[in-house]
Amino acid sequence: MKKIKAAVVGYGNIGRYVLEALQAAPDFEIVGIVRRDSSKEQPSELSSYKVVGSISELEKPDVAILAVPSRKTEEYAGEILRLGISTVDSFDIHSMIRETRSRLDKVAREYHAAAVISAGWDPGSDSVIRTLMQAMAPKGLTYTNFGPGMSMGHSVAARNIEGVKNALSMTIPLGTGIHRRMVYVELEDGYDIDAVAAALKADSYFASDETHVIKVDSVDALRDMGHGVNMTRKGVSGKTQNQLLEYNMRINNPALTGQVMVCAARAALRQAPGCYTMIEIPVIDLLPGDREDIISTLV
Amino acid sequence: MKKIKAAVVGYGNIGRYVLEALQAAPDFEIVGIVRRDSSKEQPSELSSYKVVGSISELEKPDVAILAVPSRKTEEYAGEILRLGISTVDSFDIHSMIRETRSRLDKVAREYHAAAVISAGWDPGSDSVIRTLMQAMAPKGLTYTNFGPGMSMGHSVAARNIEGVKNALSMTIPLGTGIHRRMVYVELEDGYDIDAVAAALKADSYFASDETHVIKVDSVDALRDMGHGVNMTRKGVSGKTQNQLLEYNMRINNPALTGQVMVCAARAALRQAPGCYTMIEIPVIDLLPGDREDIISTLV
Repeated sequence: MKKIKAAVVGYGNIGRYVLEALQAAPDFEIVGIVRRDSSKEQPSELSSYKVVGSISELEKPDVAILAVPSRKTEEYAGEILRLGISTVDSFDIHSMIRETRSRLDKVAREYHAAAVISAGWDPGSDSVIRTLMQAMAPKGLTYTNFGPGMSMGHSVAARNIEGVKNALSMTIPLGTGIHRRMVYVELEDGYDIDAVAAALKADSYFASDETHVIKVDSVDALRDMGHGVNMTRKGVSGKTQNQLLEYNMRINNPALTGQVMVCAARAALRQAPGCYTMIEIPVIDLLPGDREDIISTLV
Repeated sequence: MKKIKAAVVGYGNIGRYVLEALQAAPDFEIVGIVRRDSSKEQPSELSSYKVVGSISELEKPDVAILAVPSRKTEEYAGEILRLGISTVDSFDIHSMIRETRSRLDKVAREYHAAAVISAGWDPGSDSVIRTLMQAMAPKGLTYTNFGPGMSMGHSVAARNIEGVKNALSMTIPLGTGIHRRMVYVELEDGYDIDAVAAALKADSYFASDETHVIKVDSVDALRDMGHGVNMTRKGVSGKTQNQLLEYNMRINNPALTGQVMVCAARAALRQAPGCYTMIEIPVIDLLPGDREDIISTLV
């Protein structure tokens, strides 16, 4: 079997888990890792891989998995698609997905490559389930409840408040899509928790949610990358009321993101040139192996 | 907006709910109903529709929704595909899906139409979620637990036992994909419950499951078309253990089947000629409306 050649672009938290998912997959080979600081000493788990500063220094991969911050995604994806290499990202700014997809779609078509965007768990696998639930009961309400788990975006926002040395923001689901923020902060010397809490609660990230700010000695002692989702839909199939649908997961957050990205990388190579969100891709394309066997086993 | 022209083939339990789902859909028009007994007096809800004995008596539809018994599905689908009309069915004999799909695929391609097979909830929407869970955690175990709810197949099998006038077989989930059968029977005069129970438990439908047979005065008094599913997967994403995924639903069984079939009819017209199971179709194709709007709302 000819293996899929993949490059990992970015090697932070998500990149590490992408690498593990690639190592565990039967149908991938890893051509190398692209890092900004490729000239520094690399962690031991990368010793058998080529680590470079630019993807053009690697043997040309079929697909690049972009484990870079969301704000950098489009820039990286655009550059790599222009090399005729397909891309996968986990771009997670929901309000910008539609336009980002539309712009990358043009680039991907022009350079005969495929991009899968927003391929994590939300957006990502959750989006597939949300869409399926909408189809199963077209009238009704879906609530996506997150957590308990650490919100990366809210933790970063909390760290940017003056007087905060380190922070961790937990998302606590209260049901019906309403969330509480529990924010654990280490303070810089000379700052007062009440003043910091007031500033934090006024920040746009927190202003609309119930937010509690708690001073701790060590944020690091609280860090755990477990996360969860509870998605419910109560709706109408045809003219029949009270159809009850529910999806739950309790997961290691970056591990699931890394795995979904690797599945999406496989799927990218099965699509016509263009840019796709996960709801535009048949789920069978996420899996390795013989399609007839998958149909026998999973349908 | 040009509406999709649909015919309903078969008008039993599922057909009635297909009709309701078509009526509730914004993008369909109903060209008529095909029934064996089209010359008899028809139920009042069909008074505004053309009811015919053969699909060729109707204005040519874009798609025919086959609400016929599973054993008749391939015959009907083959005939209708040969007219260049796409089809949807809810064929539910899991062990025969692969081969049936393969045969219908040839017919569909030859006649430039699309068939979606096994588009109910299991096989159907459950299959999409099972496949997605497999992708999210490639190593591990998925258990699909059905019920509590009436099993049509087991109820028919129970009715075929000598001495049984009427029967209803409930599927009770015991977890890890193991099910108990609670079989409620009305007896013919002169038959003994112990003998009937022994014969029923020896039948291949029941022999491998824990089965209880209970004599009742009225099976009809127990009939309720609610059903349920609990699907769990515990598995490994990349190299990370203990990823916990769960899907639950409590639904009116034929109403959900009818709705899924209507969504699949819409999707059929968006596929290239061929035969597809639901895992081979992007979930976005199940929904009406503007695709960019769907991406904004549901991704």
